[in-house]
Amino acid sequence: MIRVTIWNEYSHELRKEKVARIYPKGIHGAIADGLAPDGYSLRTATLNEPEHGLTDEVLRDTDVLIWWGHTKHEDVDDAIVQKVCDRVLAGMGFIALHSSHYSKVFRKLMGTSCTLSWRVADEKERLWVVNPAHPIARGVDRFFELEQEEMYGEFFDIPDPEELIFVSWFQGGEVFRSGCTFRRGSGKIFYFRPGHETYPTFHHPTVMQIISNGVRWAAPDPESVPYVRPEGPAPALEQVPNPKPLKP
Amino acid sequence: MIRVTIWNEYSHELRKEKVARIYPKGIHGAIADGLAPDGYSLRTATLNEPEHGLTDEVLRDTDVLIWWGHTKHEDVDDAIVQKVCDRVLAGMGFIALHSSHYSKVFRKLMGTSCTLSWRVADEKERLWVVNPAHPIARGVDRFFELEQEEMYGEFFDIPDPEELIFVSWFQGGEVFRSGCTFRRGSGKIFYFRPGHETYPTFHHPTVMQIISNGVRWAAPDPESVPYVRPEGPAPALEQVPNPKPLKP
Amino acid sequence: MIRVTIWNEYSHELRKEKVARIYPKGIHGAIADGLAPDGYSLRTATLNEPEHGLTDEVLRDTDVLIWWGHTKHEDVDDAIVQKVCDRVLAGMGFIALHSSHYSKVFRKLMGTSCTLSWRVADEKERLWVVNPAHPIARGVDRFFELEQEEMYGEFFDIPDPEELIFVSWFQGGEVFRSGCTFRRGSGKIFYFRPGHETYPTFHHPTVMQIISNGVRWAAPDPESVPYVRPEGPAPALEQVPNPKPLKP
Amino acid sequence: MIRVTIWNEYSHELRKEKVARIYPKGIHGAIADGLAPDGYSLRTATLNEPEHGLTDEVLRDTDVLIWWGHTKHEDVDDAIVQKVCDRVLAGMGFIALHSSHYSKVFRKLMGTSCTLSWRVADEKERLWVVNPAHPIARGVDRFFELEQEEMYGEFFDIPDPEELIFVSWFQGGEVFRSGCTFRRGSGKIFYFRPGHETYPTFHHPTVMQIISNGVRWAAPDPESVPYVRPEGPAPALEQVPNPKPLKP
Repeated sequence: MIRVTIWNEYSHELRKEKVARIYPKGIHGAIADGLAPDGYSLRTATLNEPEHGLTDEVLRDTDVLIWWGHTKHEDVDDAIVQKVCDRVLAGMGFIALHSSHYSKVFRKLMGTSCTLSWRVADEKERLWVVNPAHPIARGVDRFFELEQEEMYGEFFDIPDPEELIFVSWFQGGEVFRSGCTFRRGSGKIFYFRPGHETYPTFHHPTVMQIISNGVRWAAPDPESVPYVRPEGPAPALEQVPNPKPLKP
Repeated sequence: MIRVTIWNEYSHELRKEKVARIYPKGIHGAIADGLAPDGYSLRTATLNEPEHGLTDEVLRDTDVLIWWGHTKHEDVDDAIVQKVCDRVLAGMGFIALHSSHYSKVFRKLMGTSCTLSWRVADEKERLWVVNPAHPIARGVDRFFELEQEEMYGEFFDIPDPEELIFVSWFQGGEVFRSGCTFRRGSGKIFYFRPGHETYPTFHHPTVMQIISNGVRWAAPDPESVPYVRPEGPAPALEQVPNPKPLKP
Repeated sequence: MIRVTIWNEYSHELRKEKVARIYPKGIHGAIADGLAPDGYSLRTATLNEPEHGLTDEVLRDTDVLIWWGHTKHEDVDDAIVQKVCDRVLAGMGFIALHSSHYSKVFRKLMGTSCTLSWRVADEKERLWVVNPAHPIARGVDRFFELEQEEMYGEFFDIPDPEELIFVSWFQGGEVFRSGCTFRRGSGKIFYFRPGHETYPTFHHPTVMQIISNGVRWAAPDPESVPYVRPEGPAPALEQVPNPKPLKP
Repeated sequence: MIRVTIWNEYSHELRKEKVARIYPKGIHGAIADGLAPDGYSLRTATLNEPEHGLTDEVLRDTDVLIWWGHTKHEDVDDAIVQKVCDRVLAGMGFIALHSSHYSKVFRKLMGTSCTLSWRVADEKERLWVVNPAHPIARGVDRFFELEQEEMYGEFFDIPDPEELIFVSWFQGGEVFRSGCTFRRGSGKIFYFRPGHETYPTFHHPTVMQIISNGVRWAAPDPESVPYVRPEGPAPALEQVPNPKPLKP
């Protein structure tokens, strides 16, 4: 059973009535409810818990970490960020939702500024599938629509995605690479754009299907041979002039 | 004229006689000599200079930064590392040579551990061209050989290269992705494997040709429109329901 | 001087008054006029010429071939198609414009159906730059607009582009990967979407700048070492158990 | 249950005693035996059967087609080649083994010459994993060895692989991109290098594990929404100036 941890900064829901009405259990709660039928082992973690809820034990027991952050990125402790990144490189899947494009974890894994243009204007978003056979697009038709969402526009300053799965059309005139995958070390990363806190995006069945598809795609294979960083010089496999390796 | 800065930690050459004999002007000096006929504006910088020789002025006046570091990675100041990375994202080319795979700058731009396996055994390396039409391979035949080099072996923990240009065969039995390109922001990055300090690699004409090819490839185009991070909400280009963008 | 051949099926312009008014010298003539200031050696070729104007001599003397075809794809001779593809694999650049996505040459080089959805409804197209430092985007701002164009929509059945440079937004609700690069053999290929015959697209300065950028990008490097298909078994470079290579 | 068809030209085994001793049931039989424990629905097909054993019914009932051909590529009927390629674009997985790099099907799907250098000299091959978390590498350690194999060397004239999984080291001094994936339409393609008919490669457990991994990776997802080529103009999803789409 895939072990999923859903992390949320959990701030807007506690401060803004509009958001609380849409997500009474928090965004993490809504995502957990949406994933519940799919048979994962689910837990949640939030910013204000000790160690942001991401203790060594929790991270060790997590196959896929889903992340939602927005205005509190800078409050996330650098030591926790390092631990999360190390776990990703060691094989933990990572799904960055919406404004998590600017989370410390995502930026550190990408190496770029991860900036983009944005606008909150209650506009329509239509997400087109540009990789229909990808496991993350399973069950999704040629496109789907969100009646109201925040706009994110190009240029999105990320490394060239290894796979591009969704491209968004926005009513106000922009486009955006909305579903992107990356591998870092042994870890698989999925960035998925929608999910502004003032819209009921995480109650949308296609959005939840895609996140669930992402969980299955990003989960590490228990039979895969873990990459272990080599220590010291590697012994030669064939004859070499100087068979006693020197210090570099 | 492309403005090139060659950075070297410049440590082995001052401490080890063997290295000093091969590189009496330092590795940076050898690279500068090798690039001199190609008509660049060349300067060098080393670890022990103030700000490691990478002042704001030097970085602003650099189109392509070549980096050679090995055992002193941790001595490079984090503030300088940040400045170099910011310049790369803004368009400066970056060429990481040999053990610079483990430099702070390269690791920060990659987001991975950048580890590999290694061995110093005076063995032969043969570099094969797997992308013959790439500008970085211009003038290089199907392969070329270095009689003695340090071995670097897979798994090399980097993001999937955008372009793979050279793959090395080692006498001791390993292979390695020796020529890799990446884009980060507006900057082009070229990793090139050879160049251990105890071998005369930077006196080899094909090695120097490839580094010079890399300089031309990585140099920013003065006519390209610089990407500027947008500030504040983007005005809609088409009619939207709520034309006065809200704070996100 | 880069030698450019502009190929056009040259059919609509001769049959439809509306098209003839926009392109009195043919689409090939308009493209030639647009490229003229940039200092290329230009020639044109059309479907009804002997060998479609693509004789062995013309192909040998072409560095970059620009292609515009639409309703006459099936009238292009398979032997010529093979010759063009062979020249691309040997290093000739190829720029496929608009409905040339469905030309025999482009489909043969891609290996996929190259189908897409389409609509002619006089609608607005806005092309966004998603790779601002790419040479093909030089001089282009964050986006540019075409007031009226045919719509092309996803899913566009092509192999994953090696580089994605432009993504289009359409008034009618679709998106499209409008600027894509591919390498095949030693040849560079650029697909660029706009250019329906009933709109003055090839009189638009940004469109022509991008095509000219594409010509420079796709042109083969005269100093690159041409890939020659090996004949017979390869002699071993190191000692092997059975040094006299057998027939496979 | 994944339905696998193993196709073999089945020629060497009938003509050469050495090959017959290694593969008494044919190469297809050895592959079928190797895959049998993994619970697939297996069938085989060979060149000399009517329609090469690849009738419409067989193709329709195949999820993954494994292909082994060598000296009889030209004897494969073009109409069958077309049907196989169409099925791949529609979602059937395709695994090309060894000399099938030069099969009509693989070349048509790639669009390149697919040439390489080669030598049969009883030499050692060592395959290194360069993408350890990829499903096709599951269960494989850092490398594995084949005591004797034919050599294939770079440059291998294929499109840039979407994923590179294995790189081979050869005793005679070459390297080769030995495990490569591609997507074409809805179909996943895996090229895997080893498997010369005079060596017992298809009795090697790691080779068979990798082929089995490839079958699981390439199999279409029954829940994925098949891409259907659109017919006629696409109706606009938003208001357009000329809502009655014209013929293109």
